[in-house]
Amino acid sequence: MSLINQQIVLAKRPHGAPQPDNFKLIETPVPELKEGEVLLKTKYFSLDPYMRGRMNEGPSYAPCFNIGEVLSGGAVCTIEASKNPSFKVGESVLSYTGWQTYAVSKGDINKIPDTVKSSYFLGVLGMPGFTAYYGLTTIGQPKAGETVVVAAATGPVGSMVGQLAKLKGCRVVGIAGGADKCTFATQELGFDACVDHKSATFKDDLKKACSSGIDVYYENVGGPVFMAVLPLLNTFSRIPLCGLIAHYNNAGLPQGPDLTPLIAGTFLKNRVKYQGFIISDHYDQIEDFLKEMIPLVLSGKVKVKEDIVKGIENAPQAFIGLLEGKNFGKLIVEV
Amino acid sequence: MSLINQQIVLAKRPHGAPQPDNFKLIETPVPELKEGEVLLKTKYFSLDPYMRGRMNEGPSYAPCFNIGEVLSGGAVCTIEASKNPSFKVGESVLSYTGWQTYAVSKGDINKIPDTVKSSYFLGVLGMPGFTAYYGLTTIGQPKAGETVVVAAATGPVGSMVGQLAKLKGCRVVGIAGGADKCTFATQELGFDACVDHKSATFKDDLKKACSSGIDVYYENVGGPVFMAVLPLLNTFSRIPLCGLIAHYNNAGLPQGPDLTPLIAGTFLKNRVKYQGFIISDHYDQIEDFLKEMIPLVLSGKVKVKEDIVKGIENAPQAFIGLLEGKNFGKLIVEV
Repeated sequence: MSLINQQIVLAKRPHGAPQPDNFKLIETPVPELKEGEVLLKTKYFSLDPYMRGRMNEGPSYAPCFNIGEVLSGGAVCTIEASKNPSFKVGESVLSYTGWQTYAVSKGDINKIPDTVKSSYFLGVLGMPGFTAYYGLTTIGQPKAGETVVVAAATGPVGSMVGQLAKLKGCRVVGIAGGADKCTFATQELGFDACVDHKSATFKDDLKKACSSGIDVYYENVGGPVFMAVLPLLNTFSRIPLCGLIAHYNNAGLPQGPDLTPLIAGTFLKNRVKYQGFIISDHYDQIEDFLKEMIPLVLSGKVKVKEDIVKGIENAPQAFIGLLEGKNFGKLIVEV
Repeated sequence: MSLINQQIVLAKRPHGAPQPDNFKLIETPVPELKEGEVLLKTKYFSLDPYMRGRMNEGPSYAPCFNIGEVLSGGAVCTIEASKNPSFKVGESVLSYTGWQTYAVSKGDINKIPDTVKSSYFLGVLGMPGFTAYYGLTTIGQPKAGETVVVAAATGPVGSMVGQLAKLKGCRVVGIAGGADKCTFATQELGFDACVDHKSATFKDDLKKACSSGIDVYYENVGGPVFMAVLPLLNTFSRIPLCGLIAHYNNAGLPQGPDLTPLIAGTFLKNRVKYQGFIISDHYDQIEDFLKEMIPLVLSGKVKVKEDIVKGIENAPQAFIGLLEGKNFGKLIVEV
């Protein structure tokens, strides 16, 4: 009896916002295992904004997806069969096998402990959480009493940035889309304030919430949110730059005026540090991160919000919604 | 017999490029010295691009100049009379008394050694040289073998950045306006290449000169030069940002498209650090700078190019030309 693998492949490249027909669900037989290989059964796979960049031609953070190939990305899998002595059937692993129900691996997978909910290794304890931690601590370097602002405040990166900054004694102001998300950020995540970027009074609301200016702006969105932050930046403020979701669906450059002189001039006058980083460069430091973070998650000092979509067939629509901010928490597909 | 002080004051604020009528030469009597004061006779005063920002309303790097007040800035003066026991007649000092032939000081001046040409303390050994040194070493952190690019290559900042980077074993590519300046940068300053930004083939010329990409771009101009640099930036490149002379005369934002997403996206993908700084924040480190730099200048390992204009009445026209790149070397007015 041969197993059938359901896979989502890139059918064609999107121009602007992805549409359902950019994706295709196919079925392929699972091949026989060779010596040294393991068969993975996917339990969860991750949907992350950076995947949009990989759907374009040419490199972004990572090599682009090829047409007709499975969309790759973080996944939590169970070892279903093993011809590799390092892995036993039933173990949970983190792999990079992406949008499919099964995968064969030669062993470039990492075991995950069973003391924590396994899906957390796609979010708070995985790439997004580590992105938040690294950018905030290494580039942002917030000091107690400073004001830290982060957008996508209830997403996996934003929620972690804000909670870590609170633990460091900062005033934390979130930015999120809609009243529900803002309430969650202040009530559940413990942010000092959260401002709705969809509100007509957003710029004024942000200014009021940041009455001492902004010392660290953790940049994961760009666009109009960044332009609202710009005039509030304090002298010697720091901007770790890990994402620009507001731009990902742009098919070309926006109309003018060209804001570059305003931005560069502000960075100069206010001695701002603006620094891009990609977390895949820094996995030599992930053990330090996990050592610090697992106890915080287990003790409830860091709260976790997941948005779990069931069924691989629903992944494309969920991903399209992610780029529009429709998710509420870390978006994960449960297979 | 009372002395007459010639002073240049800000007559009205410029809108766009400054015009001669933004300045006014006035004559005022030099007041009697009080206890603790010294009378300074100006020998040289400095013309620097950052002064353009101070001519606008509101703060730039420094508080704005007021209408009717003397334009302040670095000056080398001789003590002409002294009622302050710390200063003797005939000593040379560096002051911040700016565009005038005399000034009374309460003693917020620094003596300069007579082993070096005193005008150098306005250039290579003064604010511009220290700006070059601090930004390159602290933010740029060039390593031997890397490619360092600097614009305004024969100016006081650019010439110093390039020569210091050469001493560190870097490949140095200058950008300058015109063939004479480019020849000077390679023949006299020892740059590996220098590209003329006025040439129709500038972008291609820069690309050819930077065949291994750019690791450090020392930013002092902005505008089209920056946009030519952008696609050449290597992964983990650094951009110390000390000036944006291409924008200073802008009366508003340029027409579109808005280049922000392109710039931010490049900084993200290539993990670029872009950091503004203002040298006046760092004068606690100037002794280290002088200790390193004076021997380099005295030994001729660092070459100095000055552009000296004679007569205070010629300062406004020289300053207008500075913003158009008409100077060739550190622009100084000899009184």
